[in-house]
Amino acid sequence: MKLLIDTQGGDKAPIAMLNAVQMAKKENNSLDFVLFGDKKEIEEALGADAKNYEIIQTEDVITNEDEAALSIRKKDKASIVLASKYLVEHDDADAFISAGSTGALLAAAMLIVKRIDGFKRASIPTFLPGLKGPTLLLDSGANVDCEPEFIYEFAKLGSKYVEKLLGIQNPKVALVSNGAEAKKGNELTKKAHEILKNSELNFIGNIEANEILTTEADIIVQDGFVGNVILKELEGMSKVFVGNVKNFIMKDEKYFSSDEMKMSFMKDLMSLMGLTKYGGSPVLGVNKAIIKAHGNSDEKAFYLAIKNTVDFVNSGVIEYLKEN
Amino acid sequence: MKLLIDTQGGDKAPIAMLNAVQMAKKENNSLDFVLFGDKKEIEEALGADAKNYEIIQTEDVITNEDEAALSIRKKDKASIVLASKYLVEHDDADAFISAGSTGALLAAAMLIVKRIDGFKRASIPTFLPGLKGPTLLLDSGANVDCEPEFIYEFAKLGSKYVEKLLGIQNPKVALVSNGAEAKKGNELTKKAHEILKNSELNFIGNIEANEILTTEADIIVQDGFVGNVILKELEGMSKVFVGNVKNFIMKDEKYFSSDEMKMSFMKDLMSLMGLTKYGGSPVLGVNKAIIKAHGNSDEKAFYLAIKNTVDFVNSGVIEYLKEN
Repeated sequence: MKLLIDTQGGDKAPIAMLNAVQMAKKENNSLDFVLFGDKKEIEEALGADAKNYEIIQTEDVITNEDEAALSIRKKDKASIVLASKYLVEHDDADAFISAGSTGALLAAAMLIVKRIDGFKRASIPTFLPGLKGPTLLLDSGANVDCEPEFIYEFAKLGSKYVEKLLGIQNPKVALVSNGAEAKKGNELTKKAHEILKNSELNFIGNIEANEILTTEADIIVQDGFVGNVILKELEGMSKVFVGNVKNFIMKDEKYFSSDEMKMSFMKDLMSLMGLTKYGGSPVLGVNKAIIKAHGNSDEKAFYLAIKNTVDFVNSGVIEYLKEN
Repeated sequence: MKLLIDTQGGDKAPIAMLNAVQMAKKENNSLDFVLFGDKKEIEEALGADAKNYEIIQTEDVITNEDEAALSIRKKDKASIVLASKYLVEHDDADAFISAGSTGALLAAAMLIVKRIDGFKRASIPTFLPGLKGPTLLLDSGANVDCEPEFIYEFAKLGSKYVEKLLGIQNPKVALVSNGAEAKKGNELTKKAHEILKNSELNFIGNIEANEILTTEADIIVQDGFVGNVILKELEGMSKVFVGNVKNFIMKDEKYFSSDEMKMSFMKDLMSLMGLTKYGGSPVLGVNKAIIKAHGNSDEKAFYLAIKNTVDFVNSGVIEYLKEN
């Protein structure tokens, strides 16, 4: 399997990416990597190991400040652009992984790698740690202004993805709204409900946002603006909640006899809460595998993104989407 | 002060409302109550105390199933309708409190009590338990489809409310978006940002949803659909988190020596988390005080709603809104 790596995107680039690649290569030597970035810097960082990698020199970096679609055209030697072109031009290139700008990656996916026939939008899903198992949220923020049809597409992309990746047959789809009844929702949501209800998907209806972690649904859908709010609030609240518990315990003189006990308690509690980071999400709906790793990925997170990419490629979900 | 009470709306009506009214009256005999509901039922429940209250017979109940604006016209003897009319027709009637259908209450507020000149929409705010003090969220769900101007109005309503109720001068307003930069957001949010930036309000810019509980802002605004998602997710996640901690502790054999210790720990932890229920929110932007109590209010919650109503009336925020 041949994986293309953006060593320029992300807060901890390029070292975190290079360390992650070396870890993955050590574990599975059948993985071939093409590294996009500053050749000299990469060779220095990898030392003697550099000979085991194809390295492609890039000239520019697209940041979160750049206007995404425009930057794809103007900064045409940036890693995201060169790697996306490489992905299209080489049949043996299986996937591209980047911790860079989401907007730029999505623009490159749409404009260079291009949409699968029948889909109007590409979407980035995120797994939420639901109490009844993982729940896939789409759209995570790629599409902030949506037509009702796009929400149906997100549901379809998510259904196919979950089917192939987790082996769930006929996965359940729910729409996030401000009430369970079909008539509840803003204009967009009411129309999307109607389309989903009449679709071939296993649509179980609306859920309210208080059910996000407890729903039976395998997939929950909304536009990317609401999806982003859902994700970010989960992230922020988890931090506040854990912080509150930690403050309470650290000040405690009543229940715990030592700092070691306190630390141990917090560690046990955290592992139970499932507050683990997922290692990257695919851009669904385009012709080849593009994986977005979190912007602040460290080497462990980026290593996980590589592992998830291997699973994603092996699942054959892209071919499955093309057939359907 | 004369307060009108809907004894028909809410899951625990009428007993929770009647008990709450009696508690409030006992504490402050200068409060006069007008009770809207089934006269016979109310008199039986209150016994000899009934003579201390004005009771107005109602004939119909508006449920969450009814289409709100329509039900105001069709069920014109329902408590929400009769009380709203009473509020308009009696100068000495200070406020109306209901745990009934939010939609119907809002429709009655708009159609019967009517908007204050200069406001196109009424909005229900909710206080969130922010780490840096309470943060007022508008809109909580009353207006699911918004024009950019409505979001500015929510910010104005919230600013005046917080100024008068909490005595905060020049309160800080933030807009929830999917990025801190002005250019981030869906179409609605970008336009609302522009209006807020050029307004007389103390607009501090966009925040992302992970900052909702940690923001410096006194007021955060979005449309009612997103506002509802924010509120419901907070509610649902709190339950899941608390449930997780509880499960962990109840199963524990390592840290706690007895069930009493476990229960005591949970209680201390919960009180710290600020997961207390607020006792009702005003419908802001209409000519007289209308307070929405939570649909599942018990007597304590409804009693708190009465106390908050007294504070709301005394704050003079409605006159302040009319002047500005």
